[in-house]
Amino acid sequence: MKDKPETEEVREAPAPPSRGRPSSGIRSAIVLAAIDEFAREGFGGARVERISKSAGTSDRMLYYYFESKDGLFQAALEKVHEDFVAAASSIELDELDPREALWRLVAFVWRHYLNHPQFISLVNTENRFEARHATQSDSIPRSAAPQLKLVDDLLRRGVKSGHFRRDATAVQVHLTIVSLCYYYQSNAATMSNYLGYDMRSDEALDAWLGHITRVVLDWLIKT
Amino acid sequence: MKDKPETEEVREAPAPPSRGRPSSGIRSAIVLAAIDEFAREGFGGARVERISKSAGTSDRMLYYYFESKDGLFQAALEKVHEDFVAAASSIELDELDPREALWRLVAFVWRHYLNHPQFISLVNTENRFEARHATQSDSIPRSAAPQLKLVDDLLRRGVKSGHFRRDATAVQVHLTIVSLCYYYQSNAATMSNYLGYDMRSDEALDAWLGHITRVVLDWLIKT
Repeated sequence: MKDKPETEEVREAPAPPSRGRPSSGIRSAIVLAAIDEFAREGFGGARVERISKSAGTSDRMLYYYFESKDGLFQAALEKVHEDFVAAASSIELDELDPREALWRLVAFVWRHYLNHPQFISLVNTENRFEARHATQSDSIPRSAAPQLKLVDDLLRRGVKSGHFRRDATAVQVHLTIVSLCYYYQSNAATMSNYLGYDMRSDEALDAWLGHITRVVLDWLIKT
Repeated sequence: MKDKPETEEVREAPAPPSRGRPSSGIRSAIVLAAIDEFAREGFGGARVERISKSAGTSDRMLYYYFESKDGLFQAALEKVHEDFVAAASSIELDELDPREALWRLVAFVWRHYLNHPQFISLVNTENRFEARHATQSDSIPRSAAPQLKLVDDLLRRGVKSGHFRRDATAVQVHLTIVSLCYYYQSNAATMSNYLGYDMRSDEALDAWLGHITRVVLDWLIKT
């Protein structure tokens, strides 16, 4: 498989349609197909031809937009982060008691991963690459600020109301929640075999969400 | 690359040396080389020829012992689990105050992963395969029992001494500790980029160990 066409071919590639909508439609379709393919096959096993075919376009159009398989992976990774940020921005915590808001935040992260297993797969692949695509991205590091602000606002309200400990940071809260959500789902296959029960049964999943919520609250709430 | 020689070749493979030591020496050398190769290259990228060369033996000898690349990966995965179990059995918790013992247990898991990054890499690969090698293994699921017994003994002592909550299970404690240790190290590349600081600096690593110890203790210790 060639990862990139000749330079001449790129120059000869058709301009995307001039009306904004259809061209961005093709681009989006390619990114969605890429997320599926990379999540299922990893980077090395993913095939650009399968992605362009699944998106209903040509390899040439795909290279026109993304230049290389690496460019395409970066776009796929950016999209799953963008989806996380968009979903996080829609949860409304401000009106809630800080303890209730924290509970909602844990449940949001847990369910987002559960409903977007591609996120975990792409991030695992990217860690194998030592984040070489993410470090090229403008949008991924930029997406941390709103996420940490959401947590920080929650922390401040909880300290002000006298419920939360004063020495916790937004980074600690974020990393603690994502560790407890992500590991369980990322490692459910091996850990189910190791522990001898199905960690992905509905009952086990619900029990773990209840458990990790207690763990985070017990640490963060002043006693 | 062929993953397996013809059956005839297997039958003609030389018998391993008859004295136990040298043959088990070759087997061990192959497994250690395989751990390095699979950890660095993943399963698809790993090359059996590189493993046999690095172990100072032949592909034929490698197939004699392990039959296939999958058999070799399973042996590598079993070895990193065996190393974890052996290291865990050497930490002595029985004489310690249960709270101090719990602190030691968290630090043990944290440092074991830190000193054996191949463990994390192989387990991540195995999860991509939905644990198809681990489910073929006798030794991996068997290794859970001593690990959970160690945690369970600690829990019982802590409940008896009045320090620990009564409703915690060994599986919860084990999964909580490994989640908080494993995620941080497995995802340090992408999260360092996302959060904008080097999560693998000595200072950051020490701070995280301190943090997760508090999280586990705050949940488990009765207040």
